[in-house]
Amino acid sequence: MEKRLKPMDAEQLREYGHKMVDFIADYYKTIENFPVLSQVEPGYLRNLLPDSAPNQPDSFQHVLDDIQAKILPGVTHWQSPNYFAYYPSNSSVAGFLGEMLSAGLNIVGFSWITSPAATELEMIVLDWLAKMLKLPEDFLSAGQGGGVIQGTASEAVLVVLLAARDKALRRVGKGALEKLVVYASDQTHSALQKACQIAGIHPENCRLLKANSSTNYALSPELLSETISQDLAIGLIPFFLCATVGTTSSTAVDPLLALGKFAKDRSALVQALSTNPEFLKNKASQANMVVDYKDWQIPLGRRFRSLKLWMVLRLYGLENLQCYIRSHIKLAKHFEDLVAQDTRFEVVTPRIFSLVCFRLLPPSNGEYHGNKLNHELLDAVNSTGNVFISHTVLSGKYILRFAVGAPLTEEKHVNAAWKVLQDKATALLGESLR
Amino acid sequence: MEKRLKPMDAEQLREYGHKMVDFIADYYKTIENFPVLSQVEPGYLRNLLPDSAPNQPDSFQHVLDDIQAKILPGVTHWQSPNYFAYYPSNSSVAGFLGEMLSAGLNIVGFSWITSPAATELEMIVLDWLAKMLKLPEDFLSAGQGGGVIQGTASEAVLVVLLAARDKALRRVGKGALEKLVVYASDQTHSALQKACQIAGIHPENCRLLKANSSTNYALSPELLSETISQDLAIGLIPFFLCATVGTTSSTAVDPLLALGKFAKDRSALVQALSTNPEFLKNKASQANMVVDYKDWQIPLGRRFRSLKLWMVLRLYGLENLQCYIRSHIKLAKHFEDLVAQDTRFEVVTPRIFSLVCFRLLPPSNGEYHGNKLNHELLDAVNSTGNVFISHTVLSGKYILRFAVGAPLTEEKHVNAAWKVLQDKATALLGESLR
Repeated sequence: MEKRLKPMDAEQLREYGHKMVDFIADYYKTIENFPVLSQVEPGYLRNLLPDSAPNQPDSFQHVLDDIQAKILPGVTHWQSPNYFAYYPSNSSVAGFLGEMLSAGLNIVGFSWITSPAATELEMIVLDWLAKMLKLPEDFLSAGQGGGVIQGTASEAVLVVLLAARDKALRRVGKGALEKLVVYASDQTHSALQKACQIAGIHPENCRLLKANSSTNYALSPELLSETISQDLAIGLIPFFLCATVGTTSSTAVDPLLALGKFAKDRSALVQALSTNPEFLKNKASQANMVVDYKDWQIPLGRRFRSLKLWMVLRLYGLENLQCYIRSHIKLAKHFEDLVAQDTRFEVVTPRIFSLVCFRLLPPSNGEYHGNKLNHELLDAVNSTGNVFISHTVLSGKYILRFAVGAPLTEEKHVNAAWKVLQDKATALLGESLR
Repeated sequence: MEKRLKPMDAEQLREYGHKMVDFIADYYKTIENFPVLSQVEPGYLRNLLPDSAPNQPDSFQHVLDDIQAKILPGVTHWQSPNYFAYYPSNSSVAGFLGEMLSAGLNIVGFSWITSPAATELEMIVLDWLAKMLKLPEDFLSAGQGGGVIQGTASEAVLVVLLAARDKALRRVGKGALEKLVVYASDQTHSALQKACQIAGIHPENCRLLKANSSTNYALSPELLSETISQDLAIGLIPFFLCATVGTTSSTAVDPLLALGKFAKDRSALVQALSTNPEFLKNKASQANMVVDYKDWQIPLGRRFRSLKLWMVLRLYGLENLQCYIRSHIKLAKHFEDLVAQDTRFEVVTPRIFSLVCFRLLPPSNGEYHGNKLNHELLDAVNSTGNVFISHTVLSGKYILRFAVGAPLTEEKHVNAAWKVLQDKATALLGESLR
């Protein structure tokens, strides 16, 4: 029997940590052997695992065997080079190392004093990021700006909405919640609608303005201005506009300049999210000498998140990261060219970044409905396990999305995916003519 | 020059992963050499790091050197055996391995289909946990219950509050938000107040009922019932009661049975947090065959969180975990005995779990204020770097908190911490008599 794990022991962490690194490295070596979209049936795992937690410890080797035999078949492999669904969520060697270190130090950085380096490194690397993105000076931490890494984009949208809500309510009185109105295009990520639900904005005051192909699915400033005027006329209070650079469905870009200037001052955020219970008081915070990130986010607890970003920026450097993104865009352009060369398909919206929106055209006899055809093509392609793509609907049309960006994707993977799409299209069109 | 990191390469992940494991193992070997509470000054890191991200990649060894020289001095060592502040936030070998694997697979588990194993393992291990805690059958996923791992306890409080808010508003109409009332004791974690702020509950409708030493700082059912009656009489709508097992300040336990029965049905939660944009639709979700955890939480994205809990339960087993918690409680009892033997100190509230609330008694001449004295004692002890404790205020008294539970803490560390407290108390009392 294997020796028993202690709760925390440096030499056991070393021994098992090395084994886990090898397990993960081997996973990446063999990642293309798995079906990229998991092919298991709902409920598959319940029969493979016991009903309750074990009383006695199990061996690490048993657990690794179970991960291989029982868990991995139920994994959809986001890091596979054949993954083209939704948007990529990339791992990298540097990012993995940053996560390891964050898990290893395992501090909780809610206030400056609970680990000064966690707060200060986050402020510094987010200033780096603001400069990389060429944001205006106001966004830097030296003034009233400063960045914070939220857990997810949804939380980022929510905290900004809450800051704006409470700022507006301080002005017009807290009973006026039902008069507050939010504006965005109907292409905006569902995170905005969820944030409105949470913040108690009345659903009928959440104006998702129709965007269509005439603006390439971007928000129209004229329509916005007209809608705001109508709302003001009936006594409603416009307080929040959400513009998007790269919408979820088709990477549409809302015209930021025309939509007006946006400034975020951190004080509104802190006013909306601050709490100061006695048990967290400390000299540095009371003296207002430091930033306490707990007041910039929903949760109290927070990881040493900036280590990951810091290590990615340090270990790759700006130029490499730029090249990396450009190479994905180039691969997407390559895929767009492939689609354009096959007259059975159409590219539906002009490609802007690394996402291609396309569809199989319904046969000219018109009998076969285009939406059903593309839905069937999606299912056929994904059930091969050789490629995973997803879909959206634009102006009532069912559209296939091909998002390039997984870290191991090369031109050969794009070509292979296109071959699968063509073959399945041929089979489907053949059936539809029978 | 070191070779350049590729975005993702199995062999580079292996090589650098092994180095990082050794770095972290060495950190745990030497963790007692660091001051447990970081002694840096606000802003220390800004001068040590460049103003902007590097254009060219740096070597991994340089980054590790910087972590050692620049980051670690700014870390407060939550895993140090001399850490007794707030509550422990323990790492463990098994937990670390789970986090590594989650970072390695790097999937996004918002819907069942995006990695079925992530959703299913979470359902299964949370059923395990419910059984370990002997929760009623209703809490299991087989019926209308089922668990979900939230990012933090704050998010857990928030989502439950939102579910209750929206359930109440569906009953009484959405314009009635300003009439909704929340109840809890004033010892409840500040996460509840923050959740009320976010949910738009009017601050004056957040009833934090006074708890005092007569109930050991637990919520009084009589006071609650009286307050609810008064609120009902003036047309307000009670909709949420938050009871606590182990309050933040002093681990007080609210009388759950007397406060009434609590049932959480997942449908209210999903109704409050669900969104169904086209781009996330898929067969398994549409057919209602699966759970999509995105509808049980604030964010859309989510990690493969259950791997960590699963590995902790598998690799330690229930009996070991019970022993582990009992050993912390025994150490806290030991500390309580030490305090009780020194007549200069008092134990302020009876110890229930592994937290001891105590203070240095003000000298009998009464000139020296007890609160100031204990505040000074806290600062003196924490500035040694040999121990880190925190404080709270109960009924106006400044109280020191000694929370046992860091994974490496043994009796010798508790004894050493007590020695530091006694020595600093002797010095302070000597000064106060001069």
